[in-house]
Amino acid sequence: MTTTRAEPQPADFADVRTTNLAVVLRHLRTHGPSSRAAIASSTGLTKATVSSLTGDLIGHRLLRETGLSGNRIGRPATVLALDGSAYASIGIQVSPGQLTALAVDYSGDQLLLWHRAFEPRRMNSEIVALAQRAASRVRQQGRHLLGLTVAVPSPDLRELLSGSLRQKDLIVTVGGHAMLAAVAEQRRGGHSGQDLAYVSGAAGLEAGLILDGQVLRGGRLGPFTLGPAGSPTLQDQAGIETLVKRALPDFDPAALTDLGPAVEQVAVRARAGDEVALAALAHTGGYLGQGLAVLTNLVSPDVLILGDHFATLADWLIPAASAELSRHTDAAKARVVPSTLGLHAAALGGAVSHLDQVDTGRIPQPVG
Amino acid sequence: MTTTRAEPQPADFADVRTTNLAVVLRHLRTHGPSSRAAIASSTGLTKATVSSLTGDLIGHRLLRETGLSGNRIGRPATVLALDGSAYASIGIQVSPGQLTALAVDYSGDQLLLWHRAFEPRRMNSEIVALAQRAASRVRQQGRHLLGLTVAVPSPDLRELLSGSLRQKDLIVTVGGHAMLAAVAEQRRGGHSGQDLAYVSGAAGLEAGLILDGQVLRGGRLGPFTLGPAGSPTLQDQAGIETLVKRALPDFDPAALTDLGPAVEQVAVRARAGDEVALAALAHTGGYLGQGLAVLTNLVSPDVLILGDHFATLADWLIPAASAELSRHTDAAKARVVPSTLGLHAAALGGAVSHLDQVDTGRIPQPVG
Repeated sequence: MTTTRAEPQPADFADVRTTNLAVVLRHLRTHGPSSRAAIASSTGLTKATVSSLTGDLIGHRLLRETGLSGNRIGRPATVLALDGSAYASIGIQVSPGQLTALAVDYSGDQLLLWHRAFEPRRMNSEIVALAQRAASRVRQQGRHLLGLTVAVPSPDLRELLSGSLRQKDLIVTVGGHAMLAAVAEQRRGGHSGQDLAYVSGAAGLEAGLILDGQVLRGGRLGPFTLGPAGSPTLQDQAGIETLVKRALPDFDPAALTDLGPAVEQVAVRARAGDEVALAALAHTGGYLGQGLAVLTNLVSPDVLILGDHFATLADWLIPAASAELSRHTDAAKARVVPSTLGLHAAALGGAVSHLDQVDTGRIPQPVG
Repeated sequence: MTTTRAEPQPADFADVRTTNLAVVLRHLRTHGPSSRAAIASSTGLTKATVSSLTGDLIGHRLLRETGLSGNRIGRPATVLALDGSAYASIGIQVSPGQLTALAVDYSGDQLLLWHRAFEPRRMNSEIVALAQRAASRVRQQGRHLLGLTVAVPSPDLRELLSGSLRQKDLIVTVGGHAMLAAVAEQRRGGHSGQDLAYVSGAAGLEAGLILDGQVLRGGRLGPFTLGPAGSPTLQDQAGIETLVKRALPDFDPAALTDLGPAVEQVAVRARAGDEVALAALAHTGGYLGQGLAVLTNLVSPDVLILGDHFATLADWLIPAASAELSRHTDAAKARVVPSTLGLHAAALGGAVSHLDQVDTGRIPQPVG
C-alpha cells in the first residue's frame, strides 16, 4: 500500500489494512501455499503491499516460509503457508451429567477433547475449573487463546469465566447448544454458504439457524403447542426422552440420565426390526417433521440437519419426518440430513466461532 | 480527503468515499441542517473533505444550501440541509381484490398513494400497468427512481417488471407482505433498533422478522399444526377469515372478499359488548398467542407487532394473546403491540426499503 496521508482520515486506514490482511489469509486458505508474487497477482494487491502484509502475518506466526517453488520461469520464489498453530480457541459443552471441552487451533486441528462427569449442583464451578484447565493447557503450548464459548446458557456464567481466565482481551461467550452446533455445521459440516437449521435433541428440543451467512440466536422448538390448555407440546411428542421411553418400554427410567447408551439401544433394536422401536421412531419422526415444517415455513432453510441423538437415529426418523414436512410446506425445497459432527458439535461450534476474528484480519497481539 | 495514489488499491478508494458520504448523510439526518464546519467537527472529517463531499451531494441534489447561520462567533456560515426530493421509490401491495401503490421520496414524504381494484386472473398485467404508471408519475416530477418492490410473491413477476420499467439500474424486488411490513415498522413505526416480529393476517397468517438489524425473509405462520393428519392449523384457528366467520355468523360469506369492512364490523360489535364477537376474538387471540410463542421461543424478538386487521382488533386480541404467550414462554420479555401503520404497511415497507442505498452512500446518477 503506497498511500500517503497529510491529514487524519476518518474512514480508518487501519480498516484498509485489516481488510487486506483478511484478503491474504483468504487467498491462502483457498489456494494453499503460495509465493508472494502469486498472492499479488491473484488478489490485485501490489507486491510491496503483499510483502508488508505477509511480513506482518509472519510476525504474528500466522504464516511461515516453507521453501522455494521451482515450477515457474525465472528464479524460484519463497512459498508461504498458513500456520494456524499460534492461535487457539476453546468450546465447552454442558450436557446432562457431562462436560466436554474441545480446543482447536486456527488451522482447525483439534488440540484437546476432554470429557468429565459433573455434579449438577456444582455446575458453574465445574465449568470454571474445566475452562481454567483447558486455557492453561493451551497457553502452556505457547498459543494465544482467542476466545472461549460455553454451549448452554447460564446467565451469570460469562462474568464468572471472564474473571477467572486472566486475559484482558479474551472473548468469553455463552450460547445455546443448537445455535453453536449450527456454527460448527456451517464451518465444518460441509454446509458452508447454505441456509441451515440444526435441530438438537440432547438438551430439550432446540433449533439453531444460520441464514444469509448470519448466525441467529438459537431457539427452542420444544414448547410449541397448538390447542387448548394441557395439549401436548412438540417436546412431549418428538423429544428424545419420550422416544426412548416409547421405544424401550422395558428400560429402567433411572438409566435415562445418560441418553447416549439408550439411544444406541434404540438403534440396535430398530436395526433388528423390533416393531415397538420402529413404531416409536415413526411417531417421533412424524412430529419432528411438523417441527421442521415450522422452521421451513418461517425461514425456508436450504438444509435441515438432524443433530446429536437424532443423527444417530436418522435412518428411521428421516422418512417419517420428510413425509410430514412435505405435507405441511409448499415446495420440497429443504433437504433433511443427519449431522456428521457427532455428540459434541456444540463444543466444536463454540471453539471455531472464535476463528472468525483472525479470518477478517483482526489479529490479536503476536505470541512467543 | 487528500490521499494520493501511485498504484491501484484493492481496498477500494471508492469505498472510503462511499463510507464518508454515508457519514455526512447520517450526520444531517440525525442533527438536521448544519454548516460544513459543524459537520467536520462532529464527524472528524477534515474541512476540505467535507467541502468535497458536500459538493458531491449538492450535485446529486441530496443537499441544498438554506441560508446563513448567525449563532456563532466569526462570520456566518452557509447551512446545508438534506433534500430528499430528487430520489424516489415505489412499493406495490397486492391484497385480495386490491392493488395499492405508494411512492416516497428520500426524505420520506409520501409522493402518491393509489388504490385500485383488479381481476385476480389479470393480476400480473395489472401490477405491471400500475408499476409503469407510478414510475412514469415519479419520473415526470424529475425524480430518480431508486427501486420498486411488490409485496406478495409471484415468482415470475420480477423479470416481467424489470423489463417493463425501462431503467437499466432499477432495483425491482418482490417480497412477502409481513417481511415488508416489518421493514416499514423498523423505519417508520418507532421500532428502530429493536428485534421485531410483525404478524400479518391480511393474506394468510404470515410473520416478518427483523433481528440484529437484519431483515429475514418473511415466512408463513398459517400452516403450523401439531397432531395427526387432518388436525387444524394455526390459520384455521387464528386466521382473519375464521375470526370474521365466527364473530359475524349472520354475515353473507360472499361479502368476505374484502375483509376490511367485515373486520370493522367485528370491532363495532365488540365495542358494543356483543358476546359472540367477544368470544370469537378471545378464541383467535389465544391461538394467535400460541403462534407468537413459537416466534418468541425460536428467535426472542423484543416486540411482537400485530399488523393490519389484527391491529384494528388489537384491544380485544392482545389480552388473550399475551396470556397464552406467557403460558408457553419462559420470560415475558416480548411486548405485544398493535401496528400504527395501517393496512398498507407492506407497500410502505417496499418503498422505504430502497432508501438504504442512499443512506449508505451508494448514490445513483444525479437527475435533472
